[in-house]
Amino acid sequence: MQLLLIHSDYIEYEVKKSTPVAEKIEESFKQGRLEEALTAFMAVESFDEADPQQVVERAVAEIEKVAVQVKAESVMVYPYAHLSSDLSSPKVAVSVLKSIEKELSGKYNVMRAPFGWYKAFSISCKGHPLSELSRTIRPEESATCGEAVVVEEKKDEVVSEALKAESTAKS
Amino acid sequence: MQLLLIHSDYIEYEVKKSTPVAEKIEESFKQGRLEEALTAFMAVESFDEADPQQVVERAVAEIEKVAVQVKAESVMVYPYAHLSSDLSSPKVAVSVLKSIEKELSGKYNVMRAPFGWYKAFSISCKGHPLSELSRTIRPEESATCGEAVVVEEKKDEVVSEALKAESTAKS
Ligand SMILES: [Mg+2]
Repeated sequence: MQLLLIHSDYIEYEVKKSTPVAEKIEESFKQGRLEEALTAFMAVESFDEADPQQVVERAVAEIEKVAVQVKAESVMVYPYAHLSSDLSSPKVAVSVLKSIEKELSGKYNVMRAPFGWYKAFSISCKGHPLSELSRTIRPEESATCGEAVVVEEKKDEVVSEALKAESTAKS
Repeated sequence: MQLLLIHSDYIEYEVKKSTPVAEKIEESFKQGRLEEALTAFMAVESFDEADPQQVVERAVAEIEKVAVQVKAESVMVYPYAHLSSDLSSPKVAVSVLKSIEKELSGKYNVMRAPFGWYKAFSISCKGHPLSELSRTIRPEESATCGEAVVVEEKKDEVVSEALKAESTAKS
């Protein structure tokens, strides 16, 4: 996931036109505005499909950390495909975005902009040093990669044992 | 280079604080605003150092192409480091940004936001299908890779000639 966090005086959006991957939305979801918000522009990536739940948790942790630092009580979850050239499937993206919205909802005034729509938007970035931050979030290595590393370690052990044996044989 | 083009009702910025790589700027450069502008957020990348002039030309071509499509007469050149995790040196970045500003200046009302400053900014994106576009620009492969491609083409010709010969022999 690519995450761009902007501490905003305001953020507002209005849907203009659906794309072929547009989320079905209620009328009330077609526009939104938050004042004094942390805007979280995010692109869910193909890497994230290996463990979407972990990515949700780590994204939420990052957003919360920055929200505390800048003292933001509102969060706008805003899908932003242009942050990555290696996107996840739309299905995973929507699921991740909804989960992030849900996880933050207890503690913050949260709004989510709909996925897959052309949207007009306006934003004002405050400009202080913490008002623009970007993060790359990747799931920790999947089982396959993890095992690969373990295999490598085992090979090292084997070599080490072989060298010990050779050394013993020579002595 | 990573390029994010936003067709904007307005874009405005105001410098807030210098960073260690801040460009030295005149008072008049500390804030700016354009109406009905194509905003070009850009991150100059390490790849671009291989041929900055080529990257300038290709970025200018992309910006002009979109400016014509959306009928924008103003362009804001806006450094945006958060679009990449593999940035060029600040020196190359400033040089590329200034060159892009200069190349566009004959044909458009151009403004450039200063490099290396924390800035407050406000933008309104129009939301039509061409109002948000992203591009990755890389210098074309160096001589080595270019030659490799040519070799590949020659191989195709050789195969094609061989097939023709075979076909002739059979008939
Ligand atoms: Mg305004």
